Amino acid sequence: MQNRKIRHSFKLTKVGVKDVRKPVRIRRAGKSLTLTAAFDIFVDLPASQKGSHLSRNLEIVAEIVNESVRSPMPGLEFAAEKIAVELLNRHSYATQSEVWARAEYFLERTGPGGRKSLEPYELVAKAWAHRNKPMSVCKAIGVKVVGMTACPCAMETIRGDLEAEYGKIPVRLPTITHNQRNITSLMVDAPPGKDVEADELIDIVESSVSSPTFEILKRPEEGMLVKHAHENPRFVEDVVREVLAKVVDRFTALPGEVKVSVRSESEESIHKHNAFAERVTTLDELRRKPS
Amino acid sequence: MQNRKIRHSFKLTKVGVKDVRKPVRIRRAGKSLTLTAAFDIFVDLPASQKGSHLSRNLEIVAEIVNESVRSPMPGLEFAAEKIAVELLNRHSYATQSEVWARAEYFLERTGPGGRKSLEPYELVAKAWAHRNKPMSVCKAIGVKVVGMTACPCAMETIRGDLEAEYGKIPVRLPTITHNQRNITSLMVDAPPGKDVEADELIDIVESSVSSPTFEILKRPEEGMLVKHAHENPRFVEDVVREVLAKVVDRFTALPGEVKVSVRSESEESIHKHNAFAERVTTLDELRRKPS
Amino acid sequence: MQNRKIRHSFKLTKVGVKDVRKPVRIRRAGKSLTLTAAFDIFVDLPASQKGSHLSRNLEIVAEIVNESVRSPMPGLEFAAEKIAVELLNRHSYATQSEVWARAEYFLERTGPGGRKSLEPYELVAKAWAHRNKPMSVCKAIGVKVVGMTACPCAMETIRGDLEAEYGKIPVRLPTITHNQRNITSLMVDAPPGKDVEADELIDIVESSVSSPTFEILKRPEEGMLVKHAHENPRFVEDVVREVLAKVVDRFTALPGEVKVSVRSESEESIHKHNAFAERVTTLDELRRKPS
Amino acid sequence: MQNRKIRHSFKLTKVGVKDVRKPVRIRRAGKSLTLTAAFDIFVDLPASQKGSHLSRNLEIVAEIVNESVRSPMPGLEFAAEKIAVELLNRHSYATQSEVWARAEYFLERTGPGGRKSLEPYELVAKAWAHRNKPMSVCKAIGVKVVGMTACPCAMETIRGDLEAEYGKIPVRLPTITHNQRNITSLMVDAPPGKDVEADELIDIVESSVSSPTFEILKRPEEGMLVKHAHENPRFVEDVVREVLAKVVDRFTALPGEVKVSVRSESEESIHKHNAFAERVTTLDELRRKPS
Repeated sequence: MQNRKIRHSFKLTKVGVKDVRKPVRIRRAGKSLTLTAAFDIFVDLPASQKGSHLSRNLEIVAEIVNESVRSPMPGLEFAAEKIAVELLNRHSYATQSEVWARAEYFLERTGPGGRKSLEPYELVAKAWAHRNKPMSVCKAIGVKVVGMTACPCAMETIRGDLEAEYGKIPVRLPTITHNQRNITSLMVDAPPGKDVEADELIDIVESSVSSPTFEILKRPEEGMLVKHAHENPRFVEDVVREVLAKVVDRFTALPGEVKVSVRSESEESIHKHNAFAERVTTLDELRRKPS
Repeated sequence: MQNRKIRHSFKLTKVGVKDVRKPVRIRRAGKSLTLTAAFDIFVDLPASQKGSHLSRNLEIVAEIVNESVRSPMPGLEFAAEKIAVELLNRHSYATQSEVWARAEYFLERTGPGGRKSLEPYELVAKAWAHRNKPMSVCKAIGVKVVGMTACPCAMETIRGDLEAEYGKIPVRLPTITHNQRNITSLMVDAPPGKDVEADELIDIVESSVSSPTFEILKRPEEGMLVKHAHENPRFVEDVVREVLAKVVDRFTALPGEVKVSVRSESEESIHKHNAFAERVTTLDELRRKPS
Repeated sequence: MQNRKIRHSFKLTKVGVKDVRKPVRIRRAGKSLTLTAAFDIFVDLPASQKGSHLSRNLEIVAEIVNESVRSPMPGLEFAAEKIAVELLNRHSYATQSEVWARAEYFLERTGPGGRKSLEPYELVAKAWAHRNKPMSVCKAIGVKVVGMTACPCAMETIRGDLEAEYGKIPVRLPTITHNQRNITSLMVDAPPGKDVEADELIDIVESSVSSPTFEILKRPEEGMLVKHAHENPRFVEDVVREVLAKVVDRFTALPGEVKVSVRSESEESIHKHNAFAERVTTLDELRRKPS
Repeated sequence: MQNRKIRHSFKLTKVGVKDVRKPVRIRRAGKSLTLTAAFDIFVDLPASQKGSHLSRNLEIVAEIVNESVRSPMPGLEFAAEKIAVELLNRHSYATQSEVWARAEYFLERTGPGGRKSLEPYELVAKAWAHRNKPMSVCKAIGVKVVGMTACPCAMETIRGDLEAEYGKIPVRLPTITHNQRNITSLMVDAPPGKDVEADELIDIVESSVSSPTFEILKRPEEGMLVKHAHENPRFVEDVVREVLAKVVDRFTALPGEVKVSVRSESEESIHKHNAFAERVTTLDELRRKPS
């Protein structure tokens, strides 16, 4: 059927399935855990082929995910990579494949007063393969992190207003400003033999916002967090640049062609809309100054 | 077909259609406007009836909405009410009907520095009818408003911490705290001849959060808004109670059996989860003290 | 702070936190698994109390969920129940508590041709407690299942049309109709000592739609599924009634006051809106005839 | 403030605001209507500039949208284009701007039996400008359309199965298959003086699925629609190719560099996941054979 006569012979850039949900077994940094992942899986389709054999995509995911139960994957991006390779093996007409996987993920973090809590994050993995000789395969790992930003601009304006009303305020006393929930994502290519650790990406983002956030904060801890955030006011622009600087610092072993993308969105407490900043680039570009 | 033999004769509490999208013409407070509404429309079904004639629901919405183009409705809840009545007229087997309508809505507001902007809100209308003699019909109108809350608790804790570090701080100088986007909804029954104005519900909610929010804020205006919010710190509990107090004050002409529901949710900037408070009650209960 | 002077003394029906995400360890039907759950957690608040101690809610969830890692819970509803009880223990001012938990869940199913696949579902658990002497506690477990419905009405109409065009069609040959993705949820109270098994609820729903759906279907299996669905055409009304009939049949050991709610929504392939049916009732009512 | 010292001097590819909601007045094909639009608005930021003046973005949208009330725009993409140009005029440091606008949209359609109904669609407009001399500006208009697909593959398999059971079936008698809701989007660049009509894009998509869908279908009309869909079975791959063929046929006056993107997603009734096909290309590529 998928080979029958074609009415309009155009090639397609992507054909596949979206939102295939699967539990995947991962062993990372010594610990073994089960992620509930959602996969999007595509290959291209030449002009001469009627349709793509979509059930093969599902068989591949099922096999690789089942295998992870017996022998856990080192990371979600490794599952994505294996699927990307198998897609080209089993769709002989395809020249490229693309796989996305997203999953909720938890890490134990230490709050401002030393209290431990389990915090939720999102992992995003991507892999793609091209039918060269030999087949070329790439993978990337990303994270999505909820944090807090405090606005540096309002803070400065208000200091003047408050001094006009209340007299001189100590220089280092943090003044009020609007702050809000911020969602920042960071994705980095992970070339073969040069693995990028998702937990490190989370560290980078959490140390780049005004403050990381925590599930349980008793009163003094809440005070410490709020003070810390106001001592580190950040625009979304600042957050993205902080992340970029840390990526350059920490991934010195990665080659220059590695792609890096950072997106930061603040759910502005003073507006009904969001503020947004983005940089999509390569390590090469970032290593040049100014970049 | 909907009358054919039934395999299991159970009555159903609701049968109908969800997410029917329609432009509705409204004339309110002198101005005429077009809302893009989404309708959910149900009747009950007796145990003896195989199925509900769903296409009738769509015909009713289409007719009433078309009519609004020629002769605008006084409000979304009036459209819902007309539909609720027609449902019982045309589904002879039904004993009750229920209609929900939601629509985005805009109002011109004046920001802290006097600047005008058009701010987005959500209207939620409900109507339901029961086949008594005569038919009993009710309608309610609600609003969903995005605002800002500043936390009173963190503010107090931090004042102590800051004084320990920087010495005495003027009593009325607002201290830093976490603040965030807040979404508060208010819905009130609108009995016949006792109309409740959606714009007034929006006023009530916006004056009950720490600060309303605005689309355009130049620097000094941003400072004024942030200062205002910090001078009016509010828990979600406070927001709900402020709204309830104003509802009691302003709707003295409404009868005691009128239902009132208030829900307030703050997207906590210091946590990844939300804070939530709710009161579902009647005017009668609210008018008693303590209530 | 949460005890300070109150500006407007109204009691609140619910105060708490929403969307607290946690991995929970469950042991059920012999197998042990980790669910990624989202919790909503509330208590009421008397008119005399300024605010609710929200951080206690988070501590309770963290403790109970951590405990599940060492000693897995028999089900998500047991985690919810434990949290509901602890809420009243630690919020001395509250008279009632309410807990919701949702989680993705997987079951191995056997497709029409005997092929095994792992299918995704959603679990919804609820628990609530009232401060009586002794404290009264309830819990309920529910499921959300994606299946398929084929319309009986269009099928019958079309048979006539096709016979007019092509001559007599064999009586039992299924004729074309519109079919679509359907989402049906079933929730049942689980009183103490009378546990309700989530897997059985899933069985009930999957056997009540026109056909369950599967991840991997090779061509002959796809044919078998489509044929099966067309031999069992169902309105959303029929789906809800089928589920109700099975609930009555299978849960003979449950007391009459047990609440049952069933909702079925079909994403109509011939319309842009959805069809919906619902019954919210008790076992007592369902056991009476006609009901 | 946005000019103050920069900690890490990296340029940013996009800085701006997301989800700014506004009513926009449009006059198109003789009729005047109000769209409720959501705008995303960005410029780039050089490494030397601390932050972007976000309030300017909001002022620009407000001005252009207000102007549309007095003098309606010929289309949503014209509003986007005006905003893109103004962004570069007012952000002197930026070299490029990007604007997205989405809005619900309604068209009167004629169902299979001649019945008129108002059907909902989504418009997506995009515009971007580059600071060349003279400034280069582009705009594109797209639509998102809900329709129906019936699977050609299952249909063919089942015919064999049914003939084995019931004997020879008339060749042209449509056999049962799975069908489902499908969402297809089409976006086309609209270069200056070569306007692309959104209504025509909707026509192209609706005539490329197995059947368009309608709000009100009385029984015989439902039969006609289902029969039509089964006489035009389509994979998502087929839908994308049909759309591409019509784009080539109808837009002969557009230059070859015009970008075209088509995406089709079927909410498979036999699976819990979706099927997806995409082509992103230019008219030049599509005009070459095979393409």
